[in-house]
Amino acid sequence: MIKWYQTQGPDNGIVLSSRIRLARNIVDFPFHSKISFEQREQLNQKVAAALENINLGENKLRFYKLDELSQLKRYSLVEQHEISREFAAKPEHRMLVLSEDHSISIMVNEEDHLRIQVITNGLDLAKAYQLCNQIDDVLDETLTYAFDEKLGYLTSCPTNLGTGLRASVMMHLPALEQTGLISQLTSTINKLGLTIRGTYGEGSSVIGSIYQISNQITLGITEQDAIQNLESVARQIIESEEKARENLRNQDSRQLEDIVFRSLGTLKYARLLSGNDFFKAVSNVRLGVSMGIIPDLSYTKLNELMNLTGTATICDRAGKQLPPEERDYVRSAVIREKLEE
Amino acid sequence: MIKWYQTQGPDNGIVLSSRIRLARNIVDFPFHSKISFEQREQLNQKVAAALENINLGENKLRFYKLDELSQLKRYSLVEQHEISREFAAKPEHRMLVLSEDHSISIMVNEEDHLRIQVITNGLDLAKAYQLCNQIDDVLDETLTYAFDEKLGYLTSCPTNLGTGLRASVMMHLPALEQTGLISQLTSTINKLGLTIRGTYGEGSSVIGSIYQISNQITLGITEQDAIQNLESVARQIIESEEKARENLRNQDSRQLEDIVFRSLGTLKYARLLSGNDFFKAVSNVRLGVSMGIIPDLSYTKLNELMNLTGTATICDRAGKQLPPEERDYVRSAVIREKLEE
Repeated sequence: MIKWYQTQGPDNGIVLSSRIRLARNIVDFPFHSKISFEQREQLNQKVAAALENINLGENKLRFYKLDELSQLKRYSLVEQHEISREFAAKPEHRMLVLSEDHSISIMVNEEDHLRIQVITNGLDLAKAYQLCNQIDDVLDETLTYAFDEKLGYLTSCPTNLGTGLRASVMMHLPALEQTGLISQLTSTINKLGLTIRGTYGEGSSVIGSIYQISNQITLGITEQDAIQNLESVARQIIESEEKARENLRNQDSRQLEDIVFRSLGTLKYARLLSGNDFFKAVSNVRLGVSMGIIPDLSYTKLNELMNLTGTATICDRAGKQLPPEERDYVRSAVIREKLEE
Repeated sequence: MIKWYQTQGPDNGIVLSSRIRLARNIVDFPFHSKISFEQREQLNQKVAAALENINLGENKLRFYKLDELSQLKRYSLVEQHEISREFAAKPEHRMLVLSEDHSISIMVNEEDHLRIQVITNGLDLAKAYQLCNQIDDVLDETLTYAFDEKLGYLTSCPTNLGTGLRASVMMHLPALEQTGLISQLTSTINKLGLTIRGTYGEGSSVIGSIYQISNQITLGITEQDAIQNLESVARQIIESEEKARENLRNQDSRQLEDIVFRSLGTLKYARLLSGNDFFKAVSNVRLGVSMGIIPDLSYTKLNELMNLTGTATICDRAGKQLPPEERDYVRSAVIREKLEE
C-alpha cells in the first residue's frame, strides 16, 4: 500500500502535510508518571482490543510492541514524524499502532496514555481531524476517558488540558526565510495563539526551510475553532509565501533558476550528501517545482526522497549503524535511484 | 573543417596541447620598433605572396588584415591561444594568417616580423615542429631572414635570440596542485632551463589547474635539443601527476568521485556560470574522465567547451559586448547545448 506522502495533497506547493494529534487518558489507570509496567501492559491490551473492529477500509492497523522494533527502526519513525523522540527513546512497555499507509499512528503509554495522530498530505486539516475523530470515537466506546465537565480532557501536562488537541501544518517557506520576513511572521503568529517551530517541533532547528505551525491553546476553545484558526492562518502564510516567491522571481529570475537547477544537479550528481546538504538542495528543488521552473518532477517524488534519506532510516535499511561518510554515500545513491525511476 | 582541438591527441589525459612558435625577422625591413606603417603593409604583402603556393592539403591558410577583425573576434582568438594579447590590442597594419583547422597561426608584424605558431592536440611537439618547419622553409625560400652565423636568428627581444623557438605544452595538473607538489615541481623545472606558467603564459594566473610549461633557452642550443628537453620533462611531469592522481584515489575515492560528479552536475545544471566557476568544474570533470570515473565523455567535448566559453568568444558569438550576468547565462546555455549533443 502506498504511504500517505506518496499521494498528492491540497496546496502541496507550500504545505507538505497537516497533522492532528489528540491526547487522551483512561480513568482506570494512573497517569504516565505513576503507572506501573504491569499496568502499562494492561493498557496496551485494552487499547488493542478496543481497536479490533475499527473499519478503516484497506488501511489496516498494525500493532507493535515498541521494544520489539529495533532502535534504528524507532528513530526512522521519528524522522518520518510518526512518533515522538521521547517515545522512541524509552520503548519498554509501550505500544505503537500504525496504519499501513502510515497516516495514522497511535502511541500508547507516551506522556499521555494515548496520543492519536493523523497526518494528511498538503493542507487538509479537516480530513486529518475527521479520521482522528473516528478513531477517538471507537476508543471512547470501550474505554472511559479522563474528562472533566469544566476542564475537558485531562492530560499529563497542563498545556494539553481541554481539547487535548494539537493541530499543525508543515510549511515550506524558503522565500519568506530568504527575504527575512519569517521573523515578522513569527511574532504575528504568536499573538494569534499559534506557534512556529523548527522541522521537528519544539526546540528543533529549521532544515530545508520547513516550518511547523501549530495551535497552542487547548483550553476554553472548541476543537473546530482551534483547527479553523490554524487553517486560516496557514492560508494567509501561503499567500505571503507566494508573494515573496514572485518577488524573488522579479528581482532576478536567472539567479533563482541557477540556484534551483544547481540544486537539482547536486541531487542527481553528488556522491556524498550529508543530511544538511540534502535538505538545502531538496528545498531549492521543491521551490523550483512549485514555481514551474523545474517541470517533470512531482512533490510525491520529493516527499519520498525526504522520507527515505534520514540518518536512522538509511541505517535501518542497511540493517546497522553506518559511519557518516558511508551514510552520505548511501543517501546519495538512494536519491539517484529514486530520481532515475 | 574540424578544429585541431576537436581531435584526439597523445597523452590527452594530462596534456591538452603542444605548441611550437618560431620568431623570425626579414633583413629588408627595420625591426618592429622602427618599422613604418607603410613598410608593415609591404611586409604583409611579401609574406602573403611567399605563402601563396604552400601545400598544406585541405588545411588552407586564410589571410586577415587584423584591423578588419572586430575587437571581440581578436580577443576570442587570444582566448583560444591563437594570437598574443599584444597583437590583438593594436591591430593596425598587422596581418594574421590562420589555417582552417586553427592549428597554424602566423602573426605578421608582431614583436618580430613573423611569429609562426603551430598547435597540436596532446603531447606531440614533433608534429608541431615538423609543420612549423615546413612553413619556415617555404618562407625562407622567398624572404631573407635576419640571421647571424654565430648568434643564429636575430630577434627583437634578446630572450628569443638564437633558435627563435619557443616550445610549450599545456598540462592539466589538478592532483599535483591539490597535493601541493606543484611548487616543488616549479623549482625543479626552472633549474632545467624550463619555466612553468599560468594558463595564458607569462604573468597570467592558473585557471582550471592548467599550466604552461615552456623552454627558456634559445641560445647555444639546437631546436631539436630544446624540444627533446621539454618533451622529456613533460613525460616526467605526466608520471608525477599520474602518481598524485592515484594517491588521491587511494586516500578517499568517494570524496574524489563526489567532487568530480558534482562538477559534472554543475556543468549540466547551472544557469549562471562565471568563467572561474566553469574552469573549476571542467577541470574536475576532465580529471574524472581521465581516471575513468566519468565514462562516455570525451576530451574532445571538454576541449570544445573550453574553446567556446571564453568571455570574448561568447560576446563575439552574440555580436556585442554582454554584461557579466548575461555572459554567465549564455555560457551555461552553450555548455548545456554542447553536453546534450
